[in-house]
Amino acid sequence: MVGVGPGGPEDLTPRARRALEEADLVIGYRTYVDLVSTIIAGKEVRAYPMKSELERAEAALDAAARGRQVALVSSGDPGIYGMAGPVLEMLGELPGEDGNETAETLQVEVIPGVTAASAAAALLGAPLMNDFAVISLSDLLTPWEVIARRLEAAAAGDLVIVLYNPASRKRTRQFSEAGRIIRRHQPGDTPVGIVRNARREEESRLITSLDAMSEQVVDMATTVIVGNSQTVLAANRMVTRRGYRL
Amino acid sequence: MVGVGPGGPEDLTPRARRALEEADLVIGYRTYVDLVSTIIAGKEVRAYPMKSELERAEAALDAAARGRQVALVSSGDPGIYGMAGPVLEMLGELPGEDGNETAETLQVEVIPGVTAASAAAALLGAPLMNDFAVISLSDLLTPWEVIARRLEAAAAGDLVIVLYNPASRKRTRQFSEAGRIIRRHQPGDTPVGIVRNARREEESRLITSLDAMSEQVVDMATTVIVGNSQTVLAANRMVTRRGYRL
Repeated sequence: MVGVGPGGPEDLTPRARRALEEADLVIGYRTYVDLVSTIIAGKEVRAYPMKSELERAEAALDAAARGRQVALVSSGDPGIYGMAGPVLEMLGELPGEDGNETAETLQVEVIPGVTAASAAAALLGAPLMNDFAVISLSDLLTPWEVIARRLEAAAAGDLVIVLYNPASRKRTRQFSEAGRIIRRHQPGDTPVGIVRNARREEESRLITSLDAMSEQVVDMATTVIVGNSQTVLAANRMVTRRGYRL
Repeated sequence: MVGVGPGGPEDLTPRARRALEEADLVIGYRTYVDLVSTIIAGKEVRAYPMKSELERAEAALDAAARGRQVALVSSGDPGIYGMAGPVLEMLGELPGEDGNETAETLQVEVIPGVTAASAAAALLGAPLMNDFAVISLSDLLTPWEVIARRLEAAAAGDLVIVLYNPASRKRTRQFSEAGRIIRRHQPGDTPVGIVRNARREEESRLITSLDAMSEQVVDMATTVIVGNSQTVLAANRMVTRRGYRL
């Protein structure tokens, strides 16, 4: 499982690049595979549509069990809402011995990458200087009540909150609802940073406030960072103070 | 501000490497500067002891204002408990115009890296497949009551919890206290992963339980990941289920 970071080859670690170069089969969601197209040129590639995580995991394990050297590509970090989970869960359910390569003998490695929280924070300033929570607003796999309870808990604990997957084409209600939940615990002028397409074409970023955030258009390529009580604007950037005496 | 990731050059993005190569002055905590010694060989280097964050920030801004191309090195990601905050706070307080390079004209960039949460998670399996909190146990800059309240909130919200800076030579009480706080909300057999020196010499990792975690030795080079209600052992690794139906 190879994390390719937020954008192109500039954000890819040498460890991840080597795994791509050494692979004889590359599997991944089409958009992610495209991010590293120059590196994997000439290799066998199986690009999948969204929401085919289990198919991708199964294809990768099947091919690896047949001796292929597989790179399963995730954007950002495969260990954060990525493909590492489904693959390892599936690997844990494979039979232990069947005369072939199995769970014990397959070499499976997670190669981390720069996750969206880091990429977005860097473009906004330094909002993650203090404790924070990372919460996905996608309720495809997690019930909304669970997500709402986590937003409530994180805001009550004065954690900075990073929102992954704030909206999709069909799922638009959760972003403004998340704002309302956090607003119960944080003032309306709390800085909120919104980054879209970090390190890709059409990258954009803006800093707004908790009260105004729901007016912004967000999508699956957007990461949102909601500040806490220590977050301020400094040098036109969003900074969470850690407590140094300047 | 350049994030060099958890270990050596294998974990450094090309963007970060280029910033190091183009710098004519490298500033940083000695241990972090040593991680990239092969890349910065021959350059002017100012290596500092721990707890000199403000001195490092001031030295970097002073040199940049005098026209130097400075790389201020952080391990992991400078945007997560790193040097990005103090530098931008200080930059925000510089006078706007004094005939020299000032806050408006200084080019300051945060180059993210693979943070310790990602590096540790990758070595443990896939514990960060669902929502999580990142909490530092260092009470040098944040009062312990604030940290305790955040641990309580994160555990009550069933977030996976990543502990940074679990202990130092002089600060040893917080780790077991954190375990007791989380234990009020999670069962004692909740998986806990402990990674020391990720991607460096003497790397070690183990998976234990919430009830047993305080028996382990941890230090400033250790990252601890405490699972949530969905975290299980699969294929000898720590995996947080996201809800796929296998």
